[in-house]
Amino acid sequence: MTSDEQPASQRQRIDPYVGQYAERAVGMVASEIRALFAVAARPEIVSLAGGSPYVSALPLDSVGQMIGKLIAGHGATALQYCTAQGDAGLRERICDVMALEEIRAHPDEIVVTVGSQQALDLLTRIFIDPGDVILAEAPSYVGALGAFASYQARVVHVAMDDDGLIPEALTEAIARTTAAGRRAKFLYTVPNFHNPAGVTLAAARRPRILDICQRAGLLVVEDNPYGLLGFDGDPMRAMRADDGDGVVYLGTFSKTFAAGVRVGWAVAPAAIRDKLILAAESAVLCHSSFAQLTVREYLNTQPWLEQVKDFRELYRERRDATLSALDTMMPPGCHWTRPAGGFYVWLGLPDGVHAKAMLPRAISSRVAYVPGTGFYADGSGGQYARLCYSLPGPDRIREGIRRLASVIETEIELRDDFGPAPGNR
Amino acid sequence: MTSDEQPASQRQRIDPYVGQYAERAVGMVASEIRALFAVAARPEIVSLAGGSPYVSALPLDSVGQMIGKLIAGHGATALQYCTAQGDAGLRERICDVMALEEIRAHPDEIVVTVGSQQALDLLTRIFIDPGDVILAEAPSYVGALGAFASYQARVVHVAMDDDGLIPEALTEAIARTTAAGRRAKFLYTVPNFHNPAGVTLAAARRPRILDICQRAGLLVVEDNPYGLLGFDGDPMRAMRADDGDGVVYLGTFSKTFAAGVRVGWAVAPAAIRDKLILAAESAVLCHSSFAQLTVREYLNTQPWLEQVKDFRELYRERRDATLSALDTMMPPGCHWTRPAGGFYVWLGLPDGVHAKAMLPRAISSRVAYVPGTGFYADGSGGQYARLCYSLPGPDRIREGIRRLASVIETEIELRDDFGPAPGNR
Repeated sequence: MTSDEQPASQRQRIDPYVGQYAERAVGMVASEIRALFAVAARPEIVSLAGGSPYVSALPLDSVGQMIGKLIAGHGATALQYCTAQGDAGLRERICDVMALEEIRAHPDEIVVTVGSQQALDLLTRIFIDPGDVILAEAPSYVGALGAFASYQARVVHVAMDDDGLIPEALTEAIARTTAAGRRAKFLYTVPNFHNPAGVTLAAARRPRILDICQRAGLLVVEDNPYGLLGFDGDPMRAMRADDGDGVVYLGTFSKTFAAGVRVGWAVAPAAIRDKLILAAESAVLCHSSFAQLTVREYLNTQPWLEQVKDFRELYRERRDATLSALDTMMPPGCHWTRPAGGFYVWLGLPDGVHAKAMLPRAISSRVAYVPGTGFYADGSGGQYARLCYSLPGPDRIREGIRRLASVIETEIELRDDFGPAPGNR
Repeated sequence: MTSDEQPASQRQRIDPYVGQYAERAVGMVASEIRALFAVAARPEIVSLAGGSPYVSALPLDSVGQMIGKLIAGHGATALQYCTAQGDAGLRERICDVMALEEIRAHPDEIVVTVGSQQALDLLTRIFIDPGDVILAEAPSYVGALGAFASYQARVVHVAMDDDGLIPEALTEAIARTTAAGRRAKFLYTVPNFHNPAGVTLAAARRPRILDICQRAGLLVVEDNPYGLLGFDGDPMRAMRADDGDGVVYLGTFSKTFAAGVRVGWAVAPAAIRDKLILAAESAVLCHSSFAQLTVREYLNTQPWLEQVKDFRELYRERRDATLSALDTMMPPGCHWTRPAGGFYVWLGLPDGVHAKAMLPRAISSRVAYVPGTGFYADGSGGQYARLCYSLPGPDRIREGIRRLASVIETEIELRDDFGPAPGNR
């Protein structure tokens, strides 16, 4: 019996509100790999899926003491509403953090957000009517694609190579969009230690990208969660440092302090900042004072920059474990990026092996990753997998990659025996 | 020189992105009374504007200790990402809280949100296409109207009296909406200690309202921030207690614990809950574990129900101070509601006195309130003012109302000399 043949009463029991949702919500259905991720959280599985920072490295006792003192001394402020723009003292300290990437900003230019994710949501809310174009790297961060989709944006992917976004490909994508009678509202880019691609936009390309966008009147959204987590030398100069009018910069404390406080921020030109504040107010009234003052206090009283350096060394060790395991164990036909910072390696699979089709078998073999399909608006990318090395220790990483290599080898055998998996692209 | 005559370069400096915003963002402009509220925060002004809970009444030392221990002992969870639905342990305790209002719910039915405001935002996102109708009390909570407006909803106000929403007026509003060829997507109601009206939906009316909505296939959004803060007897039975399929219930810890943690929740039928989770994920990825585990720990280890009783007594005393000051001091022509709980009195002004026009003069006289115009989607309501008594102590309240009475008397004189203020309705 198909659903068309079911009596109305029975269909109703499935979802009585099915005819009442907004157009944007009709396509909101749980991803098919979501159930697998619940399984992937089991301790026997090496999860290279996550994207979670290793917060256990924080000095939890002293952070706990600091917060206890904050509440006992300033609870009447920390437990109260604040303004939609966010705590002024925290915004001052955020300017110091951004100065490490050569950004000179004023606290007034900053809006504190519920992680960078809320900044992505609010920017999309402000700029995107259904069908409007957003240019974004191929692949792009899955959370950004989710925010873009929820406002019915049309994402046009722009090719990258090992030096990040390719300027010529951007020029071409803008021209193609214009030729199609559409206007791109902004370029979304993760220049440093890209999620998921693990590459970094070369310094020489940055002014070129800015120049192309300025000429096209295209706003740049520079999303930079990992900028301070580079393994070689000083942090790179942010694109925002060279263009205060054409770039909205997004930052977050999720990776340099704690994801669980959900404190991110946007730096935007005045008019956009004003709309971001109003949109934030209608979305959540205001951010948590409790979380904001905790971060402010952390920056004011704890050796936060030393902690960032500790995180760098920790993630460098895990990156090294990942790359040397991949070098040693992966079967021919695989290829991968070599990140100079951040959390991610982008693994290309042999021809005819599909990351989504392979995932259930990987989980049976007690290793998890995110299939590349999540990072393309059109669901392509099945020949890729994102490996995240931030959470498991080096030994676990090696074990996970050993298991994954063995799964891929089995897939290659299956492919040779039965042909490529369906849905492969 | 009009703006049309300005050279393009000069216009650009005002807002270079003016042609690029989404349709929903074009009308996003800061309210004209916003600047006044910044002034109203000065200590010499008695603010009856706010809406903020008196969090200084919390035992800040022991709450601080509790949080310090939480982070030292469970920081690796509390500072990490969690699921978009929210912490399972917290959702269990939320069921206990709701049981006080006779709601039987399962933790699976709950989505934790960034205050109730996020639940309003996400529900509107899920249900509202531009032009869709939402039925809401006249007046309605300003934050809800903001969320509705940001998705371009059309709000149809439904009359209230001292017993809350009038069933006949609801029937009539539904019929009028249908006759206009539109379909209302939901009824938004604050049944207990209404913000801003200060009235409560009578017990006898609740089944009638539910019945009317069921017959019309109309979802009810029951927003209940103040339900546990009644001054007489036990909390009232929630509407959700009598209709698990047709009611989405919104709760929050902002008024019973702390606004600054931004922890609210929605209880929704399964299909709506699923969409809320997906919408929350695209909006903020997940709520703060830090805030959620803090609330969970507070409910698990602190005498939270005793604290709610303390809040009740504190707010009762302030309500009493407000009403007796109004009874004694207000000039003829004023009338007001007599709340049995919550934070608000809705003050009707004499004919020809306009709350928005009067506000700058009130602030000059060192007293602030919110003009009624904020609580109507069409900007009517100028003959009303919302007075909030939750934050100032009884003496300050009396002083504030003394000042306000004097301002109103002056307005009456002005009216008698020069006629009613422009814009009065």
